[in-house]
Amino acid sequence: MRALRLTDKDTGPTIVEIPKPSFDATHAVIRLSASALNRRDVWIKRGQYPGIRYPITLGSDGCGTVEATSAQNVHWVGRRVVLYPGFNWGPNPRVQSDAYRILGLPDDGTFADYIRMPIDSLFAAPQHLNDQEAAALPLAGLTAWRAVKTKGCIQHGMKVLITGIGGGVAQMAALFSFHHGARITVTSSDSSKLDRATFAHHGVRYTDENWWRQLQGVEPGGYDVIIDSAGGSGFGHLVRLLAPGGRLVFFGGTQGKWPEILPQHLFYKQVEILATTMGSPDEFNDMIQYVGEHTLHPPVAQCFPLADGAAAFDYLEGGQQYGKVVLTH
Amino acid sequence: MRALRLTDKDTGPTIVEIPKPSFDATHAVIRLSASALNRRDVWIKRGQYPGIRYPITLGSDGCGTVEATSAQNVHWVGRRVVLYPGFNWGPNPRVQSDAYRILGLPDDGTFADYIRMPIDSLFAAPQHLNDQEAAALPLAGLTAWRAVKTKGCIQHGMKVLITGIGGGVAQMAALFSFHHGARITVTSSDSSKLDRATFAHHGVRYTDENWWRQLQGVEPGGYDVIIDSAGGSGFGHLVRLLAPGGRLVFFGGTQGKWPEILPQHLFYKQVEILATTMGSPDEFNDMIQYVGEHTLHPPVAQCFPLADGAAAFDYLEGGQQYGKVVLTH
Repeated sequence: MRALRLTDKDTGPTIVEIPKPSFDATHAVIRLSASALNRRDVWIKRGQYPGIRYPITLGSDGCGTVEATSAQNVHWVGRRVVLYPGFNWGPNPRVQSDAYRILGLPDDGTFADYIRMPIDSLFAAPQHLNDQEAAALPLAGLTAWRAVKTKGCIQHGMKVLITGIGGGVAQMAALFSFHHGARITVTSSDSSKLDRATFAHHGVRYTDENWWRQLQGVEPGGYDVIIDSAGGSGFGHLVRLLAPGGRLVFFGGTQGKWPEILPQHLFYKQVEILATTMGSPDEFNDMIQYVGEHTLHPPVAQCFPLADGAAAFDYLEGGQQYGKVVLTH
Repeated sequence: MRALRLTDKDTGPTIVEIPKPSFDATHAVIRLSASALNRRDVWIKRGQYPGIRYPITLGSDGCGTVEATSAQNVHWVGRRVVLYPGFNWGPNPRVQSDAYRILGLPDDGTFADYIRMPIDSLFAAPQHLNDQEAAALPLAGLTAWRAVKTKGCIQHGMKVLITGIGGGVAQMAALFSFHHGARITVTSSDSSKLDRATFAHHGVRYTDENWWRQLQGVEPGGYDVIIDSAGGSGFGHLVRLLAPGGRLVFFGGTQGKWPEILPQHLFYKQVEILATTMGSPDEFNDMIQYVGEHTLHPPVAQCFPLADGAAAFDYLEGGQQYGKVVLTH
């Protein structure tokens, strides 16, 4: 079968022929019809991720049809599924176990014709989504769901700020927040991305010198929830933009270290700074159900054939997309 | 009646004669038998607190006997009470309202022979406490209770780190944590205070060069909850000392700004940084009940007569005490 693989640190993602995986008592083989790129795949491609091994088939997101599994799981055969994008969350809903692994490193991922997955990682794909949209959903949807629901506790009428609206998680977080009745403000460096965020009450370019004053002007009472993956020097302004009792949920830090922060600015307001990443299988199930019930469509920016995977990586790294970059198999 | 007052920025706390307050339909007059100092009183005395007005009777903590109130509240008369140390928490359990005021500025506080308080600020003093202990309880007990219960969610078996164990809130937090079955590590600059923290599993001097390595050695798996009021450069080490899913609860920042922090060190561990201050009347009630049921004794370092209040301030500012500094009226 074909797989888009990294064979060493210096060669980019390349299509190679590898053996097709096989099922066993607790695993199924899925014929993948679409997969999607995440920022994580780019970090791994660049050699900037812990625990890289070669060769590795990348990809955390996939949609496909169950081709074969054991007799007791045969009812899965022929069903269109999306894949929970990790293994071994463990028993604690607050945090993954030490044994947790994200799909696509160290285990071979979804950028291939077939994948072998545990039966309990299979979830029926929402019927209203085509394969490309369904493939765009898992990692970004899961991360966004946990940020919005479990950590942010976003409810109707809340004022929510989502930074870097070009990102896949940010867009899903905005979609979930909007459908929960929140009033949403977004930021981007790119005015055209602000224009595309039609669900947002307001958009601010974070490259403007006075971006945080603009955000203050939009919601003078502050934001009940802020969802951020940038970190960096702007984070010091974000914590000041929280409303009393507000929550700042972060799942990344592409801009690096937070600046020095004066605790006196925070404790009287009783604000919370909440780290999040990924989510549990239970959260994944809740997210998939919600997407189905509300017929939500994850935004897809562009589709590439699996064979052109290297071009898909280049496109994602270019940073011009609005939505997920998808591979069709 | 006598009151220990600040009359201007430059004169220290001075005993003056002022009119005794009177009750009305919703307020009672309480004959105070003891009160206690908090760090807040020192900041106000030094002119380093927002919204200072003169003259002001300081004091957030008090124990006394209800002397007089309106006919419909007459059942309170003669009862020994402690006072909820604030006004107007409001309807949101997550955060106090904009109208919230801590007792003792801008409203006249407890360093006086009598005080006028709303009926719903009165709580029966735990019977096992003498007046001095009861006066030591309100602000520190409330702040610690919210930090331990509402924010820290401390439960049996958790590993808990409490910094600066010389402080009144830290001591109450340690007492509550201990009675919840937590395994407690404490820090202080003063070895004799570590020795006095007999409930602690381990103590570390934060003035040691390698203090955070010592703390790492005590709990190699990290701390489930850290309670801190220092902030400053050490805060960067504290966040690294959290266990996966851990909570860092902070209610102050005597050492100033947190250092720059790399978000990548935090989000995979799903940790939370939670600001807290004071607590609601419901939390106060829960705390008072808990203290009564478990016959807990807040540590009292030293008692001074109200007339020697200036000396009590000097003593507190000297920083050598272990426990609350109490005034007897």
